[in-house]
Amino acid sequence: MTDFKEITSKENSLIKLTSMLQSSAKARKENALFVLEGLRICFDAYDNGILFDKLIVSATAYSKYPEDIKKLSLKAEECYKIPDSLFKKISDTQSPQGIIVIAKIPQKADFEIDKNGKYIALENIADPSNLGAVARTAEALGVSGIILSQGGCDPYSPKSLRASMGTLLRMPVIILKCFADDLKNTGLKIYSCVVDSDAKHINEINFSVGSVLVIGNEANGITNETKQKSDELITIPMSGRAESLNAAVAASISMWEMMK
Amino acid sequence: MTDFKEITSKENSLIKLTSMLQSSAKARKENALFVLEGLRICFDAYDNGILFDKLIVSATAYSKYPEDIKKLSLKAEECYKIPDSLFKKISDTQSPQGIIVIAKIPQKADFEIDKNGKYIALENIADPSNLGAVARTAEALGVSGIILSQGGCDPYSPKSLRASMGTLLRMPVIILKCFADDLKNTGLKIYSCVVDSDAKHINEINFSVGSVLVIGNEANGITNETKQKSDELITIPMSGRAESLNAAVAASISMWEMMK
Repeated sequence: MTDFKEITSKENSLIKLTSMLQSSAKARKENALFVLEGLRICFDAYDNGILFDKLIVSATAYSKYPEDIKKLSLKAEECYKIPDSLFKKISDTQSPQGIIVIAKIPQKADFEIDKNGKYIALENIADPSNLGAVARTAEALGVSGIILSQGGCDPYSPKSLRASMGTLLRMPVIILKCFADDLKNTGLKIYSCVVDSDAKHINEINFSVGSVLVIGNEANGITNETKQKSDELITIPMSGRAESLNAAVAASISMWEMMK
Repeated sequence: MTDFKEITSKENSLIKLTSMLQSSAKARKENALFVLEGLRICFDAYDNGILFDKLIVSATAYSKYPEDIKKLSLKAEECYKIPDSLFKKISDTQSPQGIIVIAKIPQKADFEIDKNGKYIALENIADPSNLGAVARTAEALGVSGIILSQGGCDPYSPKSLRASMGTLLRMPVIILKCFADDLKNTGLKIYSCVVDSDAKHINEINFSVGSVLVIGNEANGITNETKQKSDELITIPMSGRAESLNAAVAASISMWEMMK
C-alpha cells in the first residue's frame, strides 16, 4: 500500500488548496485540478481514466474502507490521512464519507469531435443542476458528448458533478473558447433551440448525422452571434401559458427528438 | 384603501403563524393556508382566483409599491404593515421584496377531473424542484392538470411554488388520498412510467383521450400497488450507461410524447 502522509494543521497548503478547489471555479481552472468526493464518484473517475493527483482520506474512512482506499491509492501520486475534524473542513457535504481525490481536469485535446456524432451544446448555462440533469439525459439517450461555452457553470464543480451522478466524468465534455466560431468549425449542423413560434418545430426536423443541438442560458437564451452561425432555429411548440421551459427540460425533449 | 394594522413584535401570533406556514407542510395542512411571497406570484394567485386571507407588507414595500399593494389589499380580509427587520424574519428569500399574502389552499372539490383530459400524476415525488419543473412543462405543453399523492412534497411550499414559476397556482392540482384506488376511479387510462426495457416503449404508444401518465418517486419509482392498477407499463428507451433519468426529465419527455 502506498505510504500515507499525515496532516493535522488547517494551515497546511494542501488543505487550503482543497478548500479553494471545492469553492472556486477560478482556482480549479488555474490549477487544472478538481475535487472528487465520495467512493462512488472516485471510482467513476477511476474507471474512466481521469488522472489522480492526490488522495486524502479521513482517519475513520481509512479504517472503514481499506480495500477501496488501497485501490484508489495506487492511482494517486501522493496519499494523505487526516483527522475527521480536519476532513470536515475540506468536505463539500454535510456528512462526509471521508474520501477525497484531487484529480486532473481532462484537457480539450483529450476529446475529439466526431463529425458523424450527435451532440448537445449548452451556451452559458448557469445552473449546475441543469448541467447535471442534461448530462444524465445525454448519456441515457446515447448522445455523443456535451459541448460547453466558457461563460457557463463549471462542469468540475462539486454541484455539477453531484447533479450529473458521475455522468460528466463518463462522457466527452468539450469546453469551447470561442463558442459560436468553434462550434461552426466543428462542421456539425447547428440547430439552435429558441422560444419563437415562427421557428421550425422540433418534431418536423429530420436530424441528419453530424448534428449539434444548442440550448441557451436560463434567463437570456442563445446569443445573437450563435443564432447567426446556426443552420436552423428550432423550437418546442408550446400551447399553454408558461413563457418557457426549464433549460434542462428543453434540452431533454430536444435530445429525445434528435436521438429517436 | 383597506386599513393597515401595524405589528412590531416577533412574538405576535400572525408573525409566528407566517413563519410556521413558510417552513412546515404540517402547519400548511392543518391551517389550510400557505404563503405567497413577492408581487409576481401574488398577482398570479390573484388572477387565478386563489382566496387571500391576509396581506403583510414591509414598511419599505408599502411606500414603494402603493398601487400594487392597494390592488392586493382589496382581496385580503386583513392587511398588515410591519418593519423591514421583522419582515426579514418571516421571509423565505435572501432579499425580500416585502410582500407576503397568506392564502387559502384550494380544496379538492375546486377541481374536477376531465374524463377526456390528459394528466400527469406524480406518485410520492420528493423534490420540490422536480415538482416545479414538471408543472412548468405540463402547462407549456397543454396538459390538463397535475395529480399528486399525499406522500409527495407539498405543492404549496415556497420551494415548489418558486420552482414552478407560479404554474402551480394556474393549473388544476389534485391531491389524491388513496393514490392507486382514486386514480383508477377517475376512469382515465393509466400509463405508468418504469425503468424496464421490457415495458412498452413510449414512442409506440397511441395516447387516447382520457389518459394519465404516472411518474414515481426519485429513488423508488412507482409503487407496486399503482403498477398493478395501471393499464400499461411504459418506458423511455435508454441506450447509454445512465441508470435512469431525472424524474422531471422523464416526466417531460413522457408528456411531450403524450401531447404531440
